[in-house]
Amino acid sequence: MKIGFIGLGIMGKPMAGHLKAAGHDIIVPERKSLDAEARAAFAVVADPAAVAAAAEVIILMVPDTPDVEAVLFGAGGVAAGLSKGKLVIDMSSISPTATKEFAAKVNSLGCDYIDAPVSGGEVGAKAASLTIMVGAEPAAFERARPLLEAMGKNITLVGPNGAGQTTKVANQIIVALTIEAVGEALVFASKAGADPVKVRQALMGGLATSRILELHGERMVKRTFNPGFRIALHQKDLNLALQSAKELGVALPNTASTQQLFSASVAAGNGGLDHSGLVKALEAMAAHPVAPDA
Amino acid sequence: MKIGFIGLGIMGKPMAGHLKAAGHDIIVPERKSLDAEARAAFAVVADPAAVAAAAEVIILMVPDTPDVEAVLFGAGGVAAGLSKGKLVIDMSSISPTATKEFAAKVNSLGCDYIDAPVSGGEVGAKAASLTIMVGAEPAAFERARPLLEAMGKNITLVGPNGAGQTTKVANQIIVALTIEAVGEALVFASKAGADPVKVRQALMGGLATSRILELHGERMVKRTFNPGFRIALHQKDLNLALQSAKELGVALPNTASTQQLFSASVAAGNGGLDHSGLVKALEAMAAHPVAPDA
Repeated sequence: MKIGFIGLGIMGKPMAGHLKAAGHDIIVPERKSLDAEARAAFAVVADPAAVAAAAEVIILMVPDTPDVEAVLFGAGGVAAGLSKGKLVIDMSSISPTATKEFAAKVNSLGCDYIDAPVSGGEVGAKAASLTIMVGAEPAAFERARPLLEAMGKNITLVGPNGAGQTTKVANQIIVALTIEAVGEALVFASKAGADPVKVRQALMGGLATSRILELHGERMVKRTFNPGFRIALHQKDLNLALQSAKELGVALPNTASTQQLFSASVAAGNGGLDHSGLVKALEAMAAHPVAPDA
Repeated sequence: MKIGFIGLGIMGKPMAGHLKAAGHDIIVPERKSLDAEARAAFAVVADPAAVAAAAEVIILMVPDTPDVEAVLFGAGGVAAGLSKGKLVIDMSSISPTATKEFAAKVNSLGCDYIDAPVSGGEVGAKAASLTIMVGAEPAAFERARPLLEAMGKNITLVGPNGAGQTTKVANQIIVALTIEAVGEALVFASKAGADPVKVRQALMGGLATSRILELHGERMVKRTFNPGFRIALHQKDLNLALQSAKELGVALPNTASTQQLFSASVAAGNGGLDHSGLVKALEAMAAHPVAPDA
């Protein structure tokens, strides 16, 4: 199948590679940043409109809501090249409410639209083990499923358009607030004189058990803050959560305070650290590190 | 061995029963509330002082810091009956800083002191599968270990006196804040129009995975708020966390806001619900339930 892929970043490049390996022809828009490897593997055309004209399915993997809007509806955008019966799959993490508008506009051109944001990061993208949260009509989902299965493992149709992005926001809320919770607990325990390594061990297996306590708790005590997933990106995701919550009329008190801690982290020059580095903002407030930096 | 057991509540009674079943003689202080079953199984003496005089090891399982202080050092208290070489094991969940004072006073009488709070609730107490977090000198811990093994499974010596209570506080912080995180995520997703049952399923297996998302997330969508662990008790535990944090000079921003949500829950008459019922306070702030009550 001819597949357009727009957004060959650290996530998109291996994802497009898996589709190529599955036997598809991949078409990408011209960018100065395209390296020789990408130019050899993929067909390069002028712009997103040309990608949409040449491909049956167009996949987007770009940073934020305005990027998706520009790629779809800007000058030389996907919409200008679409014709009836094509399928647009947005795998970026963007606004659930904007997604519903984008889907309606693409549907009005006689095309299907799926929101299919992912979690699992660069590691999951390279291993084709991404978790994919889908908002779509069932028929459009079935059409996209073989392609999604080439890139991910846990693929869930959550509901209609927007539901995939809503689920991704819910995921980012839980992940950020659980990191913050583990951070508060370890800073407290360490300042009280307990060994945070042993505290973490004692808590694993009980009700406090989480993937975050396991992975990010370890990073906090071992002081390994190389990303991983950057604080600056998680800050963007919580901005999205709070913006969407405002539109919906939902109060998210701990998301708001955790967003402030991400802002404090960025202000302290830590925006490039793994999101487990949020603990440093809590340590600053206690004038006490969980453990000394390496 | 002759073991004193003070505090035959919903946790203490099955715990004392396991020690009896392991072949020990259990001595308890007179209380009007003692039922026929307890009077048949345990030797009843006048007061905690008489318990301490008759037993080699004295175990406490009472509600709060002032209760432990009264049982140990009040009129007719344990201290009045202690003699050199005895061992006091406090399995209540109380203040880490008060624990250090209590331990020093008991040590000054020539006795060992261990703080060994538990998690796992009534189910864990009945099944002898409690997680036990211990603060003790290594020799005292080894002395207590066979008794602890009759009541629990994951038994960790975290550090010196106070470290067990510190770890329990850390546990209660993580559990409360993770419940709150799952609550914010599900209220957000539900109000955005997604099915919270499917959202929870989509998130299980990824970075948001936790015992809380599994158990308490299910209670939130199924509206099963029978305790379990009551909001009013978790409110007490976060009070303890914030009081200890104040003494230590540690800021715990999300513990503080979550404590306020527990207070709002109690004010709304929900103090007797399982702590997963915290979601109702978030639902009230969004004027939108995750799912209708049964």
